Amino acid sequence: MHRFFLSPEQIEGNQVIFPGDISHQIARVLRLGVKDNLIVLDNLGKEYLVQLAEVHPDKCRAAILEVKSHQEISKCLVFLFISMTQREKFEWILQKGTEIGISEFFPVITSRTLVQSADQWRKKTERMERIIREAAEQSGSIQLPVLHNPLAYQDSLNCAAKFSDISIILWENENKQGMKEYLRERQFPGVPAKIAVFIGPEGGYSEDEIDQAIIAGIQPVTLGRKILRMETAAILAAGMVFYELGGL
Amino acid sequence: MHRFFLSPEQIEGNQVIFPGDISHQIARVLRLGVKDNLIVLDNLGKEYLVQLAEVHPDKCRAAILEVKSHQEISKCLVFLFISMTQREKFEWILQKGTEIGISEFFPVITSRTLVQSADQWRKKTERMERIIREAAEQSGSIQLPVLHNPLAYQDSLNCAAKFSDISIILWENENKQGMKEYLRERQFPGVPAKIAVFIGPEGGYSEDEIDQAIIAGIQPVTLGRKILRMETAAILAAGMVFYELGGL
Repeated sequence: MHRFFLSPEQIEGNQVIFPGDISHQIARVLRLGVKDNLIVLDNLGKEYLVQLAEVHPDKCRAAILEVKSHQEISKCLVFLFISMTQREKFEWILQKGTEIGISEFFPVITSRTLVQSADQWRKKTERMERIIREAAEQSGSIQLPVLHNPLAYQDSLNCAAKFSDISIILWENENKQGMKEYLRERQFPGVPAKIAVFIGPEGGYSEDEIDQAIIAGIQPVTLGRKILRMETAAILAAGMVFYELGGL
Repeated sequence: MHRFFLSPEQIEGNQVIFPGDISHQIARVLRLGVKDNLIVLDNLGKEYLVQLAEVHPDKCRAAILEVKSHQEISKCLVFLFISMTQREKFEWILQKGTEIGISEFFPVITSRTLVQSADQWRKKTERMERIIREAAEQSGSIQLPVLHNPLAYQDSLNCAAKFSDISIILWENENKQGMKEYLRERQFPGVPAKIAVFIGPEGGYSEDEIDQAIIAGIQPVTLGRKILRMETAAILAAGMVFYELGGL
């Protein structure tokens, strides 16, 4: 069944009102009609089974048939601190990362990051938010991941240190500490475990940046001997955190 | 340093002769010159450090400075049996799958596979082989994965049963057997462990197809509750086999 995230003010009493873009999708793209059922999510843990009562490309309305509350707590939350890069690649990371369940995306500007301007970036936020929403709807998520504003590298280190239980930084020159062994040996203060994963730009981190990370308490790790593209490393590393700690 | 796979006949005595397409890349794209060093691989386990002696867009020649034999055996080999799909998506799977180290790709035609014609498919083989080669060169692989011809579904099951130690099939309706637990409980007859991983088309496998797989000794497993796109599932599942059994 098709799933849509709405904002809480669009869910009122025993009915939901769909905004213009989703109404267009329901009426024109999916060609659904009155009496068809849908799932609506409020991004606060509630899931509504609804039935379309009015279908129009500008405005659809549906009656709520059933409400379900998701109380379960994720076993782990992954915060992805990822170097900004060209639009297409970044959007791909957002899409796949949302599918596998990353909680928060932090675009980061490092010395070798291809896209250095946060202003240019902000103009594309709306499009990126839509990619995230569609990926979350398709993958059965009950919560939308958060896309943060770009951070300077040192700020990103401080942020990770403050909000996560452990932080790892994937580095191609790390040849001792495997990510798997590191994760297995850690103790987490509670559930959910909060893990920050840092993925550098195409040209890698500089030695100085790795030193800065270590000072901030962030552990350089390796996934193995393979040289992975940044987007592959991002999805694989996040997937492995979920594989190890549960939560896929 | 740039790496190139050559066929054994291009490596002769103490020099290597590059074919036209790679010569063009060396001379025009990478703009390398005489005395620049490169790495050449013969796809049989040997790695050559070479120095360019002649650079021309049609023909480059280099002198062998050093030979290294890779004797190490992979801990596990992953055979990916993946439903054929639209070109762009399939090429993406080949690229990322090669990066993480999949050994053999088997395109499979299931009842819901989008692309049903193997003939049309074969015309694109050259392009797909190039994508694999470039991904292998970039990721530091010492062996090129094999891209097989498309197989009918039942043939793919027989093939997996014959050549692998264990075979798993990812199925969205499997809600008991997790992939992680299944892999952990298995005993492998030797090294490398050979694992076949089946990934269905966008529309999923039919119930009949899952029954056929079970009869062939192939275990349905789940990665978790998330509904993943086929390309995400392929890369994540293969990555997790490597994570669990070693070999990334």
